[in-house]
Parts: sequence; C-alpha cells; structure tokens
Amino acid sequence: MSGDTKIYVSYNQVHEIIKKAVAKYRIGQEFQPDLIIAIGGGGFIPARILRTFIKRQGNKNILIQAIGLSLYEDIHDISDESAVALAKATNQVIKTQWLSFGPPVATTLVGKSILIVDEVDDTRTTLSYAVQELRKDIAEQEKKFIKEHPGKKVPETKLGIFVLHNKKKEKKMQLPDESIVRAGRYWAADETADRWIVYPWEAIDIEEHTQKCV
Amino acid sequence: MSGDTKIYVSYNQVHEIIKKAVAKYRIGQEFQPDLIIAIGGGGFIPARILRTFIKRQGNKNILIQAIGLSLYEDIHDISDESAVALAKATNQVIKTQWLSFGPPVATTLVGKSILIVDEVDDTRTTLSYAVQELRKDIAEQEKKFIKEHPGKKVPETKLGIFVLHNKKKEKKMQLPDESIVRAGRYWAADETADRWIVYPWEAIDIEEHTQKCV
Repeated sequence: MSGDTKIYVSYNQVHEIIKKAVAKYRIGQEFQPDLIIAIGGGGFIPARILRTFIKRQGNKNILIQAIGLSLYEDIHDISDESAVALAKATNQVIKTQWLSFGPPVATTLVGKSILIVDEVDDTRTTLSYAVQELRKDIAEQEKKFIKEHPGKKVPETKLGIFVLHNKKKEKKMQLPDESIVRAGRYWAADETADRWIVYPWEAIDIEEHTQKCV
Repeated sequence: MSGDTKIYVSYNQVHEIIKKAVAKYRIGQEFQPDLIIAIGGGGFIPARILRTFIKRQGNKNILIQAIGLSLYEDIHDISDESAVALAKATNQVIKTQWLSFGPPVATTLVGKSILIVDEVDDTRTTLSYAVQELRKDIAEQEKKFIKEHPGKKVPETKLGIFVLHNKKKEKKMQLPDESIVRAGRYWAADETADRWIVYPWEAIDIEEHTQKCV
C-alpha cells in the first residue's frame, strides 16, 4: 500500500451512510429520542442530518442541543490556562458548553430518551466523558424527582449513541453506562480501520476532496 | 416560468459559497471572531464549515457555541404548551438552548468579537431576537465589569452576522444593534429572491437533490 492512507468522506456519503444506518438499525423506532445532543464541533453536522431521517410523525422536529467537548482541539477562547494544561496532562476533556435546562424546553432529562451524536469514536474518551457528565446531571435530577414525587417510581432515562465512524481499535475508555451497549443503543453508521478520516467540512478545496472519495 | 420554483442547494455549493464569502468580505481579518454562535438547528452546518475558513493562525480553532431558537418549527420537547402558543401568537421566538458561561471558557462576552451564524435570513425575526438577547447578556456583563473594574473603560463587544442566504424581501424586524450593519459586519454568502430554499441536510434522496442544484 502506498501514498495517502487517509479516508476521505464526501458530504453526500455522510448523508447517505446516516440514512442507511437509520433504516438498518431502525433508529427512532423502538428508541425514540426526545432530545439529540450534538457534541460540537464534529457532531453538529451529523446531528442535523440525522434529525432529517428520524423526524417524527406530524412533522415534529426533535430538539437538538449542543454540548462542547474538546479533546484534541486547541480552543482559542480559554480563559483559564491551567485548566487546559491539566486537561491535556490527564487526557481529560474540556467542557466548552453544556445543556440548557428550563422552560419552555427540556426542564428535565428524567424519563427521556437521549441520543448523543458525534462524528467519530476514536479512543472513546470524549463519548465516555459525555455519558459520565450526563449521568451526573440525570442522577441529580432523579433526586429532585424523588423529592417532588415521593413514592412514585422514577422513570428510566435512556441514553443512546450515534457516530458516523467507529474506528476499530483498542479504546482508551469504556462507556460508564453499560446499558447503552447492552440494549443495543450504540450505533456507528460505518466502521473503519484506525486511519485518519478526513471529513468534507474540513476541506479547503471541496471539489478536490470530493474526487478523492470513492 | 413553470414547475418547481424552489432553490435547491447542494452541500458542495454551501461549502463553496462560504469559502468565497470569507475571501470576498475578508471575514476573520479585521473582525476576528473569538466566538461563533450557531443558531440551531439551521446554523449548525454553516457554522462548522465557516470555522474551517476563518481558522486562526497556529491552528487554533475558534470556539463554537450553539443557541437554540425556534420560529417556524414545531419543537417536540416543549413542556410548557402555553409558552409555545404565546410565541406563535405574537410571532416570537422560542429559546431552546442558550450560551454557557463559566470556566474554562468564555467567562464573559465583554470585549469579545462574536459572530452569529444562521442558514437563512428570511423575515429577520430570529436574527433580531438573537441579537436582542445577546445584547441583554452583554449589558448585564458590562455592569459586572464596571463594578469589578471601577474607572476602567469597558472594552467594546462587537457582534457580526453571517448567513448562507439573505432573501431580498421586506423584513418583519430590524436588527436591534445597528452597529452590525453600519460597521459592515452583516454578511450573506448569497442573496436570493423570496423563494423556498431547500438545503441538502433536509433531503431524503441526496442524489436526486444534488442533481437539481445547478
């Protein structure tokens, strides 16, 4: 094998693999997301496309909220440099945005079906962190639910994960919520070898990029 | 003129008009955004692509945060139906997510250059609302700045707007911050007649959609 071992993906290919994955795994059928959480910046585009294909009946759009998690990226607007250094040293993730709770939307996560979306599952670090932090929020809100509804059973909150590409490799982290995998709610639209995936939104010359996608 | 009067736009066309607009209007040169605010869900994809073209030197990514504003859409996860009814009746906008403030990022908007991104400027209602709400946050944070730095001049906070398409039509709302237009920080990658624009992320059959884009 010689030359460029990167995997180039075109916009239409991204769109198409999302459509196929939704049909194949029947995403949105049994597990009907109330909320899509896009991990930014990579999850923004897959999340928006995914919503087109798991739109509910009656033309109701599923709400998308974004969270900002940064692992590799060198974020510009960090005001606390020591936090960045610490995150880098410990392989941690930097939270650059989190969910909004409050009327008129999404006042609670309890009992909801929540689909987390990102572009690539590489080392699984970002996804694990997202699940861990969401589970903290959910646990807190469950406590509040119990306080406000004594004696009532706490409705189950279901998390799912959708990524464009899962790289077949040893993962640095495991998902802290095993029920996601056990219940079959981890979906990768495609699986790849451990190679560099070049997404179209990173392309400077989109015609040249598209020609490389076969 | 007969038949389909909708305007179909392909992914590669979206990518290309963003690239051209950045070069033509020198976006990111004089006005260097510290923060990109994507109005979801339509602004997610343009914002992510735009970041590729206004990346700063040293490979530092510009932070993107999302805000959720809903005008036309029938959001699924609305817990307060009266809020929705009111918003519809008064042509208002529903806030489904807002910015996160706090360490390690974006602890304040004061003195920052902020670029708001959406897909289309139709009636200007959503954009006006976004600017109005941001200006409220900025005013509050400026008060805090003055309190914490008595006697010091409050640094100017600059807003800019970038949309894929501006529809040439009478707008229902004007931007509450006139300095955006006056300083030449309102950018539309393209202008269109008042027709229905079909974006690729809404397409069910992406091949068919792409063929319609000329």
